[in-house]
Amino acid sequence: MVDNGVSKSAEQMASDQKEVAISEFFEKNRHLLGYDSKIKALMIIVKEAVDNSLDACEEARILPEIHVKIEELEDGKCRITERDNGPGIVKKHIPKIFGTLLYGSKFHRFRQSRGQQGLGISMAVLYSQLTSGQATEIVSSTGDGMSHKYALKIDVKKNEPVIVSEESMNGEKWHGVQVTFVCEGIYREHKQGVLEYIKETAICNPFATITYEAPTGRHEFRRSVEKLPAEPKEIKPHLHGTEIGILARMLKDTTARSLSGFFVSEFSRVGGLTAKQICDKAGMDPKISPRKVDDTQTVALIKAVKEVKLTRPPTDCLSPLGNNLIKEGLVKELNPEFVATISRSPTAYRGWPFLVEAGIAYGGGIEAPSVMRFANRVPLLYQQGDCAIMKSAQSVDWKRYKIESDKLPTGPIVLFTHIASVWVPFTSESKEAVASYPIILKEVKLAMQEVARKLSIYLSGMRRAKWQAERKSIFERYAEETAIAISELTGEKREKILEAVKRVVKERMTEAVFEEDENGKESEPSSEPEGTGE
Amino acid sequence: MVDNGVSKSAEQMASDQKEVAISEFFEKNRHLLGYDSKIKALMIIVKEAVDNSLDACEEARILPEIHVKIEELEDGKCRITERDNGPGIVKKHIPKIFGTLLYGSKFHRFRQSRGQQGLGISMAVLYSQLTSGQATEIVSSTGDGMSHKYALKIDVKKNEPVIVSEESMNGEKWHGVQVTFVCEGIYREHKQGVLEYIKETAICNPFATITYEAPTGRHEFRRSVEKLPAEPKEIKPHLHGTEIGILARMLKDTTARSLSGFFVSEFSRVGGLTAKQICDKAGMDPKISPRKVDDTQTVALIKAVKEVKLTRPPTDCLSPLGNNLIKEGLVKELNPEFVATISRSPTAYRGWPFLVEAGIAYGGGIEAPSVMRFANRVPLLYQQGDCAIMKSAQSVDWKRYKIESDKLPTGPIVLFTHIASVWVPFTSESKEAVASYPIILKEVKLAMQEVARKLSIYLSGMRRAKWQAERKSIFERYAEETAIAISELTGEKREKILEAVKRVVKERMTEAVFEEDENGKESEPSSEPEGTGE
Repeated sequence: MVDNGVSKSAEQMASDQKEVAISEFFEKNRHLLGYDSKIKALMIIVKEAVDNSLDACEEARILPEIHVKIEELEDGKCRITERDNGPGIVKKHIPKIFGTLLYGSKFHRFRQSRGQQGLGISMAVLYSQLTSGQATEIVSSTGDGMSHKYALKIDVKKNEPVIVSEESMNGEKWHGVQVTFVCEGIYREHKQGVLEYIKETAICNPFATITYEAPTGRHEFRRSVEKLPAEPKEIKPHLHGTEIGILARMLKDTTARSLSGFFVSEFSRVGGLTAKQICDKAGMDPKISPRKVDDTQTVALIKAVKEVKLTRPPTDCLSPLGNNLIKEGLVKELNPEFVATISRSPTAYRGWPFLVEAGIAYGGGIEAPSVMRFANRVPLLYQQGDCAIMKSAQSVDWKRYKIESDKLPTGPIVLFTHIASVWVPFTSESKEAVASYPIILKEVKLAMQEVARKLSIYLSGMRRAKWQAERKSIFERYAEETAIAISELTGEKREKILEAVKRVVKERMTEAVFEEDENGKESEPSSEPEGTGE
Repeated sequence: MVDNGVSKSAEQMASDQKEVAISEFFEKNRHLLGYDSKIKALMIIVKEAVDNSLDACEEARILPEIHVKIEELEDGKCRITERDNGPGIVKKHIPKIFGTLLYGSKFHRFRQSRGQQGLGISMAVLYSQLTSGQATEIVSSTGDGMSHKYALKIDVKKNEPVIVSEESMNGEKWHGVQVTFVCEGIYREHKQGVLEYIKETAICNPFATITYEAPTGRHEFRRSVEKLPAEPKEIKPHLHGTEIGILARMLKDTTARSLSGFFVSEFSRVGGLTAKQICDKAGMDPKISPRKVDDTQTVALIKAVKEVKLTRPPTDCLSPLGNNLIKEGLVKELNPEFVATISRSPTAYRGWPFLVEAGIAYGGGIEAPSVMRFANRVPLLYQQGDCAIMKSAQSVDWKRYKIESDKLPTGPIVLFTHIASVWVPFTSESKEAVASYPIILKEVKLAMQEVARKLSIYLSGMRRAKWQAERKSIFERYAEETAIAISELTGEKREKILEAVKRVVKERMTEAVFEEDENGKESEPSSEPEGTGE
């Protein structure tokens, strides 16, 4: 059987075996995190930095003020600077957060946040060092009058930070983080570029102010609401969707003293009664120590879990944008003629709560059709063909709603979809597309059908008169809020500003019409095509 | 600016920071390695095990004999057993190879092999433990009369093997590895299932014998050639495509004493003269120690590299299937009326050598059109929409070749494409699609156009007469080889068997026609539509 080539024995092969550091792995496979072109790299780095800033500001309950700057250097390099007004990072944690792949606060928590892996920002550091040879500069202040500056690289073979330089400075009043990357990059303004990312971020985060100094000029995206959305709550895992291997590990790691106590304390929404039922069905004593449960008993427990009626996961852990924020975002950046929105009730996939929100904006300042996808308030710009949101959009029968379409709407329509979850199931580490779980596809489709129905009613002109009347009062409220804000800022009298604002708003938004939420879900069930074999 | 919610300070946030083990990461993100359905999981586990077996056999120059068995157990579980006749694994390495993610011999080498990450087989162990709670059983023998049996799990928080049990047994004559997994799984026979994977593996590896005991019955795929393809050679990285960060690390890690010696010894195809040129252009002394090169100098070196003419990477490191093996594979499993193949010359992307081979099989036993994609002899069954091979196929103007098509051929045509490289750029860890580098798209398209042209000539009937004559002699050779093999196996006289085989082959393959390779590339340049603005 042995061929005449140079054969290698098992012993010889054994000597080739080596461990691979996760940083080596992603250095060689950087396209897995989206770094597959010099154009895209700039967008990803800005995105990782801004996402982290927004997460930190929200967690510290600070209205975000974010500055992004991109400079084109020689030799095909770019410098990216991002600065926020967040809580800052405690000095001793800076090196690990930026210099270790798979390190962070978000992976082990069940909480709705933009970041979830602990990979993004350190990968941006790694990409910079790989393509420019330069360290990333981080300045952080927690607002105690001191700021700390690091120049960091990553030791790729050890997946550890290398501190190239560090310095502490006195007298800083600002709190927040500023990061500066130098990397290979090509700056372009197109549908998947930095400017589009920032614009869509402004739409989905209308409580943030973002200024962007692009190589082509300055852009300012001012907040239109002065209040953060409700804070998402951290939850425990749900028994539905907990696999046997995870259960086995949790049984070993728990500090609970009894098996029933384990179920109550480690899982979401398991009461003493349910815990006892599970133990009973598995034929086990609820009082035994969880650490003494063996493999066969673990199998019995998983079987028992499936036979017991479990309460659904809590949904107050999610922080939706809500109808108003979606409208504010769409109106402020797109200036459409008509907007309709829906924020659906939460549900769950594999025990993880999620909810879907949708908006449709029509006419006015909108020139071309577009589908905007968001997950936990982050715009998704790539891999739309793979994304559950796009698949759902293509599965809607738009013609039923008298919306011109070729699989997707073809008119001046922006379709906005936001999925919020404690764990968004992305199809890759680059977090560009949402995995197509059937329940997600269904929820997105229902949301889109709902806003399509509203647009269809508007388009048919049936309620044009009603909106005309409502429009006036909404414009006035809008003007009033703006006037208050400007007055606070400038010290000028409120009334005077109000007058000026009313004039400007009327001129600029002469065609904008909002449709108020009128419990639309129940109002016209006959026009809901779900379940008719579409 | 601070909102009234429950805010969190930088100090509080700091305490949430934690490292994430790579095994935890993939446990939570198992869909990244393809484990997103119970149907697909079975295919992936079989694939990882068979790929490893074929790699080991080829490296030890053993003609592979592989057995795969799937049993459906109760409670939605399956047992998968895979056994090979490879060189076996040395005892002390077994736990790490199966129980550590990102561990193996292939990541750090530049060598054409099926595995390249050190992730596949340990992820199969992790998936099994996650969904069944059971350890994976490994038996290995290096042929020294001993065999070693392990039951292994993975400590997910540490990314380390847990030895559940181990046992050594005397008197075993076999050498090889046998692995048994128990996991959640649903068995289906469809275009992306285990049976299809094994069938396509048999087509692309006609030197392997694979027997498959499916829950639905036994399938045997016997080898049709008795010789392994040439052994791929390990090469060094090429300077073209070496990024500054990698160069900086290599400069530190090298054992070379001089800078010019570093370039000559660490890179492929750099001679003393080129090395000196690089140093000169960077304004550096070729004799200085590579470990003394600083960051600014590294930048200068990378710039100099781009200005120096470099020899292309060596291409003898690749092991193509070649025209004959592709034909053998397609004929033995598909029994077509016509086959044409092309094995293109190697080229490189980002300094990494690769080559493309294509085959087209038409009519006969083929009922429906199909595109078979292979990378380093492994069939790719998922994510075809993302794959460079599929994109290239859709970019060919099939109608020019008078092949009925709707983007892809619609008739009874199997399109076979094989990409061989020292590092295949997959779009995800699950290795299901090849990334769309322009040079790869171009090479695949040229290969497809070439076989399309050959089929087009056949279809137009121009050379039917010629093939009729050739057919006979090829059938006879085929029959002779088969007779020799059967004769060795059974002890029956060669002549007697030859007669019988000739009869059978004639009956079974009465319509099969091979087209011999006749340096077709030059023969009809006018029919090559490349460059005509297609």
